[in-house]
Amino acid sequence: MELTNILIGQSGGPTAVINSTLAGAVAAAKESGKIGHVYGMLNGIKGYLEGRKTDLLDLTEEELRLLKTTPAAYLGSCRFKLPKELSDPLYAEIFRRLEEDNIGYVLYIGGNDSMDTADKLSQYAASVGSDIRIIGVPKTIDNDLTGTDHTPGYGSAAKFVAAQVRQIVLDAEVYRQDAVTIVEIMGRNAGWLTAAASLARKYEGDNPVLIYLPEVDFDPEDMLRRIREALKERHAVVVCVSEGIHDKDGILICELTQGVTKDVFGNKQLSGCGKVIEQMVRVRLGVKVRSVELNVTQRCNAVEASLTDVEEAFECGRQGVFAALEGKTGCMISMEREEGEEYRIVYTAKPVGEISNEVRGVPTEWITEDLADVKEAFAAYALPLIQGESRPPMKDGLPVFLYRKDPNHKA
Amino acid sequence: MELTNILIGQSGGPTAVINSTLAGAVAAAKESGKIGHVYGMLNGIKGYLEGRKTDLLDLTEEELRLLKTTPAAYLGSCRFKLPKELSDPLYAEIFRRLEEDNIGYVLYIGGNDSMDTADKLSQYAASVGSDIRIIGVPKTIDNDLTGTDHTPGYGSAAKFVAAQVRQIVLDAEVYRQDAVTIVEIMGRNAGWLTAAASLARKYEGDNPVLIYLPEVDFDPEDMLRRIREALKERHAVVVCVSEGIHDKDGILICELTQGVTKDVFGNKQLSGCGKVIEQMVRVRLGVKVRSVELNVTQRCNAVEASLTDVEEAFECGRQGVFAALEGKTGCMISMEREEGEEYRIVYTAKPVGEISNEVRGVPTEWITEDLADVKEAFAAYALPLIQGESRPPMKDGLPVFLYRKDPNHKA
Repeated sequence: MELTNILIGQSGGPTAVINSTLAGAVAAAKESGKIGHVYGMLNGIKGYLEGRKTDLLDLTEEELRLLKTTPAAYLGSCRFKLPKELSDPLYAEIFRRLEEDNIGYVLYIGGNDSMDTADKLSQYAASVGSDIRIIGVPKTIDNDLTGTDHTPGYGSAAKFVAAQVRQIVLDAEVYRQDAVTIVEIMGRNAGWLTAAASLARKYEGDNPVLIYLPEVDFDPEDMLRRIREALKERHAVVVCVSEGIHDKDGILICELTQGVTKDVFGNKQLSGCGKVIEQMVRVRLGVKVRSVELNVTQRCNAVEASLTDVEEAFECGRQGVFAALEGKTGCMISMEREEGEEYRIVYTAKPVGEISNEVRGVPTEWITEDLADVKEAFAAYALPLIQGESRPPMKDGLPVFLYRKDPNHKA
Repeated sequence: MELTNILIGQSGGPTAVINSTLAGAVAAAKESGKIGHVYGMLNGIKGYLEGRKTDLLDLTEEELRLLKTTPAAYLGSCRFKLPKELSDPLYAEIFRRLEEDNIGYVLYIGGNDSMDTADKLSQYAASVGSDIRIIGVPKTIDNDLTGTDHTPGYGSAAKFVAAQVRQIVLDAEVYRQDAVTIVEIMGRNAGWLTAAASLARKYEGDNPVLIYLPEVDFDPEDMLRRIREALKERHAVVVCVSEGIHDKDGILICELTQGVTKDVFGNKQLSGCGKVIEQMVRVRLGVKVRSVELNVTQRCNAVEASLTDVEEAFECGRQGVFAALEGKTGCMISMEREEGEEYRIVYTAKPVGEISNEVRGVPTEWITEDLADVKEAFAAYALPLIQGESRPPMKDGLPVFLYRKDPNHKA
């Protein structure tokens, strides 16, 4: 009997380790002896619908090793939400293609939207009696997926944020002059990455002295008061803010100036909350201030990735294949942390329909009463995730990555 | 006879390797057997004038090893220009303190302004017949000092910029959708760091497709035309710009919006040229666009530092001590590159008065005729400087650094 094939897709924003998950899935599929071709959708389900796929068995062993430490999404990504109604002809079209490619298993690696895709595809499969197995594999630097202890991608981003903030603090403290540094960190709805800035402290009371997450309301006046207090004790004050912080009325801080800020073309000038707070501090406290936006480097730095994260991402890819081969479908691979002193993860497959589209934020009981820091419980949670150094191979002084030209080049 | 002491200061903007130079100087001073105490000025000559210094012989061997891979300025820094007139009482005050501390040698580590300080102190010494030896040791990520092949600090910053841009490009290319990414890189008057973005290319014709340096005039219309052209061939276009690019009238691009851009407080909103160009592209080309400012991470990342740079910085510190002990004064340690296939540096001491305050930019003959890229000659120059990985020790998943609390904490 001819073996059926597996089809793997990557979706949503890139991370430092989503390719490690892909490498793990390819490795498991090859080793299983139960799978024919290993196809990759180019640019996710959207590209697959355009007939764009690649045969991942063409990758050499060395290329697969490189893939494991390459950031971003090797297969290309998409932002695409499947229609709500399963009666939409798009579903029939997808399954027509899956049958044509003799696909027995689909692995979809991504965040909330991608789990929604996996959910809908498995629902459709059930509704038409297809036995194609659909498995979701989590990834997101935001760490905001429910149903899993954490998500692959978060550990590396958190490690990068903590190391950068530690070094920005050293940089900020060289002058003996009052100065405030605002560091804006990714996380629109969840403060997991910003909370990682707390790990940057070298001793109790070290900078960053203030950390603001989007899980609670942000009070600009209270922050200004706290900065003023901190400046009595030290010259350099470093404040870390999540891009998604908002005031008590739910208004995003980054939107505070946009109504009146226009450029030479008369357009609204968009800037992050870091810039807004920088200007607040300048005007209200009259002190030297600058802001630093860590930006995309947070999510795409593989040179400083967490080895724990890279290995867990790889294992999630393997587990996705195992679950599919076991006949599971409509599931997401989940990481469960075992109780006890030592950090240990158990991999399970949870019904992807139970992974709500809800954002899992930092528990508010981990945020200090003054709403300007996180408690020790956060460090206990996060430290195991940033352990170990994953280093891509270097050539000519620079990291070597595996890449495809075609998703970017026009035919 | 009692041995005289050495006094070492750090000045100007921090780098990833200025502490390696300090570590090299301390090591050489200890090994020489000809120097008594090894003092460090706290916050440069300004702090020393306030009587603030530390005894570097108190550092253990392990601390000295940590110092070598710690970014920013361990001793603290200052921005302080000595008075023009040697008759200014400040000079007498400095030399009174030097005599009091039994200083025989002064090492001043820094950029243009610091070399000016070394120059003036040695002139004053000559004018009063003091035999205190004054040596300048170069550092700056900008690589804009004359009289040396390159400056310690540049190699690590260039390596970081190239690696980040390579990863930002991978990140930018994941979607199959036209999009422009602007990366703003440090360098107000010299484009050395921005030119390093060219090293990020993985193959001929790879992103970043456009690179703009401040050594030549920037023509926004020409850039928009080139981006439009590039978008015909590829979805993602990455453009790297130096923060100091200016138009043919010498007007900085970053100043183009500031006249009309006001925030809620009625103040001018300062933003970099990256944001200005982002907005230009959005309005004129109607394409998805974002900008990334690499910001201070360029100068303070020691986790991805160049081993070549760290070792050269260390050697510059040693050479500074050797020069002083040989009786040289009013000199700057210079790195000269030997002719030939293999990269080899010879250390010399040049009269610091000859190191003009002039900015040494990227030679215009290394810039392509279309003013939107650099030629192969740049890579031949820069590649040797980014070789090898210097990694600080890691603990709990994060880099360990040597630090002092007191320059930042108020008494």
